[in-house]
Amino acid sequence: MIKAGIVGGTGYTGVELLRLLARHPQVQLQAITSRKEAGMPVSDMFPSLRGHVDLPFVTPDEADLKGCDVVFFATPHGVAMAQAPELLAAGVKVIDLAADFRLKSVAEFEQWYGMPHTCPDVLAEAVYGLPEINRDAIRQARVIANPGCYPTSVQLGLAPLLKQGLIAPTGIIANCASGVSGAGRKAEVHTLMAEASDNFKAYGVKGHRHGPEINQQLRTIAGNAEVDCLFVPHLLPLIRGIHSTIYAKLNDAGQAANLQAVFEDAYRGERFVDVLPAGSAPETRSVRASNTVRVAVHKPRPDTVMVLVVEDNLCKGASGQAVQCMNLMFGLEEHLGLDLVPVLP
Amino acid sequence: MIKAGIVGGTGYTGVELLRLLARHPQVQLQAITSRKEAGMPVSDMFPSLRGHVDLPFVTPDEADLKGCDVVFFATPHGVAMAQAPELLAAGVKVIDLAADFRLKSVAEFEQWYGMPHTCPDVLAEAVYGLPEINRDAIRQARVIANPGCYPTSVQLGLAPLLKQGLIAPTGIIANCASGVSGAGRKAEVHTLMAEASDNFKAYGVKGHRHGPEINQQLRTIAGNAEVDCLFVPHLLPLIRGIHSTIYAKLNDAGQAANLQAVFEDAYRGERFVDVLPAGSAPETRSVRASNTVRVAVHKPRPDTVMVLVVEDNLCKGASGQAVQCMNLMFGLEEHLGLDLVPVLP
Amino acid sequence: MIKAGIVGGTGYTGVELLRLLARHPQVQLQAITSRKEAGMPVSDMFPSLRGHVDLPFVTPDEADLKGCDVVFFATPHGVAMAQAPELLAAGVKVIDLAADFRLKSVAEFEQWYGMPHTCPDVLAEAVYGLPEINRDAIRQARVIANPGCYPTSVQLGLAPLLKQGLIAPTGIIANCASGVSGAGRKAEVHTLMAEASDNFKAYGVKGHRHGPEINQQLRTIAGNAEVDCLFVPHLLPLIRGIHSTIYAKLNDAGQAANLQAVFEDAYRGERFVDVLPAGSAPETRSVRASNTVRVAVHKPRPDTVMVLVVEDNLCKGASGQAVQCMNLMFGLEEHLGLDLVPVLP
Amino acid sequence: MIKAGIVGGTGYTGVELLRLLARHPQVQLQAITSRKEAGMPVSDMFPSLRGHVDLPFVTPDEADLKGCDVVFFATPHGVAMAQAPELLAAGVKVIDLAADFRLKSVAEFEQWYGMPHTCPDVLAEAVYGLPEINRDAIRQARVIANPGCYPTSVQLGLAPLLKQGLIAPTGIIANCASGVSGAGRKAEVHTLMAEASDNFKAYGVKGHRHGPEINQQLRTIAGNAEVDCLFVPHLLPLIRGIHSTIYAKLNDAGQAANLQAVFEDAYRGERFVDVLPAGSAPETRSVRASNTVRVAVHKPRPDTVMVLVVEDNLCKGASGQAVQCMNLMFGLEEHLGLDLVPVLP
Repeated sequence: MIKAGIVGGTGYTGVELLRLLARHPQVQLQAITSRKEAGMPVSDMFPSLRGHVDLPFVTPDEADLKGCDVVFFATPHGVAMAQAPELLAAGVKVIDLAADFRLKSVAEFEQWYGMPHTCPDVLAEAVYGLPEINRDAIRQARVIANPGCYPTSVQLGLAPLLKQGLIAPTGIIANCASGVSGAGRKAEVHTLMAEASDNFKAYGVKGHRHGPEINQQLRTIAGNAEVDCLFVPHLLPLIRGIHSTIYAKLNDAGQAANLQAVFEDAYRGERFVDVLPAGSAPETRSVRASNTVRVAVHKPRPDTVMVLVVEDNLCKGASGQAVQCMNLMFGLEEHLGLDLVPVLP
Repeated sequence: MIKAGIVGGTGYTGVELLRLLARHPQVQLQAITSRKEAGMPVSDMFPSLRGHVDLPFVTPDEADLKGCDVVFFATPHGVAMAQAPELLAAGVKVIDLAADFRLKSVAEFEQWYGMPHTCPDVLAEAVYGLPEINRDAIRQARVIANPGCYPTSVQLGLAPLLKQGLIAPTGIIANCASGVSGAGRKAEVHTLMAEASDNFKAYGVKGHRHGPEINQQLRTIAGNAEVDCLFVPHLLPLIRGIHSTIYAKLNDAGQAANLQAVFEDAYRGERFVDVLPAGSAPETRSVRASNTVRVAVHKPRPDTVMVLVVEDNLCKGASGQAVQCMNLMFGLEEHLGLDLVPVLP
Repeated sequence: MIKAGIVGGTGYTGVELLRLLARHPQVQLQAITSRKEAGMPVSDMFPSLRGHVDLPFVTPDEADLKGCDVVFFATPHGVAMAQAPELLAAGVKVIDLAADFRLKSVAEFEQWYGMPHTCPDVLAEAVYGLPEINRDAIRQARVIANPGCYPTSVQLGLAPLLKQGLIAPTGIIANCASGVSGAGRKAEVHTLMAEASDNFKAYGVKGHRHGPEINQQLRTIAGNAEVDCLFVPHLLPLIRGIHSTIYAKLNDAGQAANLQAVFEDAYRGERFVDVLPAGSAPETRSVRASNTVRVAVHKPRPDTVMVLVVEDNLCKGASGQAVQCMNLMFGLEEHLGLDLVPVLP
Repeated sequence: MIKAGIVGGTGYTGVELLRLLARHPQVQLQAITSRKEAGMPVSDMFPSLRGHVDLPFVTPDEADLKGCDVVFFATPHGVAMAQAPELLAAGVKVIDLAADFRLKSVAEFEQWYGMPHTCPDVLAEAVYGLPEINRDAIRQARVIANPGCYPTSVQLGLAPLLKQGLIAPTGIIANCASGVSGAGRKAEVHTLMAEASDNFKAYGVKGHRHGPEINQQLRTIAGNAEVDCLFVPHLLPLIRGIHSTIYAKLNDAGQAANLQAVFEDAYRGERFVDVLPAGSAPETRSVRASNTVRVAVHKPRPDTVMVLVVEDNLCKGASGQAVQCMNLMFGLEEHLGLDLVPVLP
């Protein structure tokens, strides 16, 4: 059994991680920390976990995190980088669900997250935890930067095209929409139900943190070519779900290619990426509460490809992906604990 | 033209009041105060008001509230009682949308609202602003305690029965449900969209502030008889709307009465109370964004009456009712500025 | 492995049953019938099942239902009673998720469901499939009448009180609310999203089919005493979830009893009934997509008990309960395939 | 007073038209036809209209439509063209809220709407009813083709750029999203609440009827230049609201232009088009239940313009626009009866 600790379990990625780990056959939950809620049973905060998680929140001191095999950080940005070095030194593997290790450039991190990066060496070592792109590196990793929710969907939508060189690498548009759980469980006016339900809008129109992450990763996928993807997020009046509508210009090779076959070949054997039949439009609910991403590829104009991607932002977009990475890091079957049938309706 | 000021215009009763007053043919908006947002155009906070309200928020000092004919308090509890005496002394009429003047017993107020009452004399003078029950007193009033949203629906549902003495005055149950706008525009976790949408629950199960208000008023309506109405609120996953399902035991007179006729007689000529045909079930959306209450009366058992009431909690349950009171206080037609067709779908 | 067939798999109880059976370790899905959709892969209708259910819909003739160990009817009322006798004769166990075998009185069935009952002998044999009430009989049953969604919640909320004789058996009120999936996957105007979302109303105010079912069962639970429970359903603007707010008069014994202890004792050891701590208000989302019911008991007046119950209407209120019954009928562990952590948020 | 008739008043554009006309100071409602519902009071179908519309539905024969000054068709496609010639001959003005007169090419109409066009002469005469583009022609018109909901938002978003020649006329992308009321009040599975709420998806991915309408109109706006706008609709889990995110390539002039000023100049004096300050992201709720469109223009890349547009699809996208056209056709103030403050929250 893998001994797992969770730092910060009071947010939505925390409760989703607990939902998954509580039923993972090879994981034993050791401790869930929250300074603020120390002493409170986790299931008092999340009654959905009554009967499934019997632990209380504990302070970081009470939690013997160094005695864990793996520690997940389901925390605000900045927490993991403060604690990771000590855990790594103690031989504990670290999976950060926040952004501390996502942006390879310290300068870019500091620009977008507004704080100094305190452990550039761990950053240098960290592996970007998107298994379908980066599986081998994840298997060997000690530190995982768990991808952002939007970037997961955009990368999986564009990777087959970029790897095969079928599109112009600039001028890409990722028109994305996310449910409100992506904003986390913070008390803020703009995500109140009376504000965010019965409403739809773009946001982050002057730039969003997931933009640089997307472009960094697309460059890597494209073999370090220059890539320019315009990322425009929108806020959906639902809780879980990301939908990305991605547009790119096909080059000559792309116009000649059988795009459906390109995608089916690219994801053959991938358990968590489902390429839909030609002509499909995936629905967010078709992946609700599961680790699956569904993708459909369209050619609405001879020179334009449109890729539609749906994902559960809390599962494949966060905690499910973290568990998938953990499985790889510990040599388990990749889908262990993740064999979830989406909840529909 | 009536010169109107609004103290505290940053919440949901504030923006609803502005929606109504902006189109009221006899009102001129003088000032909207908010210490915190002073200087910001009101329509920057509420873009729905762009083109309709051109004023900025101002500090209470900048607002010449004493120069107004009427001042509405769309504030947290406790603000109106601090400012009302001075305004009244200056000849300004006061309408408090909060609870400062609702409970006639100072002790009861202090128990439920957790603060001392600072002007019992104004409290003694204040008139409870439910026109269908209290019209004449409102016409003469200088200070209005605008009723709570739930109490409005429960009183209108029970008044015909209590006035005619058709039910047992104890053992009444008011099983009510409200949309989340009733909780106001405060940043709190439990009203986040990810918490409150796709969910339903009772709340305030150990006692809710509207309970004593309901019973105080029902006693008055019943001619100062003892009344015991158990009030149980629930939180609906929608923004606007209150639905009350009220159960009471019919006494002999009640069992013999034509309840449909009782209600139709009671509300004949009332513009804002619509008694539905026998057998109906009113829908919250049928009054959305309007000042109308719809009521249906049923006799599901020979000795039981069930009354169904729907209301827009922000309009007839708050700001619409306040405007209705203002119209009465200034001798205007009662429905001026309130001739709103509900928005459906 | 239990060979299972499903008759009628195109509705919401069908897709929920498939979600559960697809991951049940002791079940092999043999056939899913739909005359209308024969030939279509099930996962074309429900893309959530892609990768989990590979069968197509087949006609009843193609499906070798007599070769199954158990056949579930996720059909409109009237289908199961037409086919059950032949299946039973072939040694197949039958679980009907519709109402064909719920009402023990043929007359009552015919009154409420508007069709003649064609196999009263099977009706006489059928066992009401509420394990917490009826476990031993279910173990021996050949035919299960799977309970209605509302009746499950009301019975579990009242059983401890009725069994112990703590309440007046008449004058009970069950004020209930259900998400729209309870109305099924039929194309009807009143359950369109533009009609049913952003809305709340009572319905079935002249009588609802679940009323006689509730009273029949409560009578049995009360030892064949007369029981009168007024059942008033409301339609919630959410997909999954039932919330019942139940009121009853405590008799002397009830007023003296420790109601919290009564409930905890009654459900000790029941895996799928969670009695919340005193003072709690259960939320529908706390059981979303799970087979758990959560219950809280309150005494808002000295002579009144209020029980709050939440349930996922498609799972414990339908398909999960059917699987729970199947487990009992085949001597499996009762929770096999039902160890679901609720999905929150 | 203008005598107005409505053919087909049982859908969502019908009830919205009634909401507006019931309060229009210069309109007298003469008749609302529905063969199927003849005899039923309109307010029985739409209880929101109780107290505001007292007419019953009548058959077309009973309705003296020829005695009206204007007849609105809030009908399925194909009805208006069957009845318009006779009405026009009788001197009645016609406003068709369906698509019968939107596409100038008969061939294109027949391709997209799957029916022959029966009155090409009326089609030739019909004026496309988008006042901000076409005001003078509307003033003179006898027949109005009321624009589609999506096309209204896309045209208003692109017109300033196309008229000034600031963008490449091909390669435009209109990534749009609409609430479910756009699908009408037909009983269909895919718009059931249990299907369409808590969900988001693209649809019409193989081509949508509003695509040719958009391109026809953009060509006209661009001075009959070739225009190619890819239109991709998505279905939002809310009732009212359209949001369009439009991308185009700026040409040299466009890159040099002050785009904010271009939009402000273009819509100066337009009462129903609100250009938001630079950097804004409009919300659908900010125009809910009103005839206002709000627009924001962005330059996310030096060579790319992004325009964000929000609209209430039933009001400015349908019935409000129809009333605006009527006002123009009858020489009234354009905003009469349309001075609606959006409902927020």
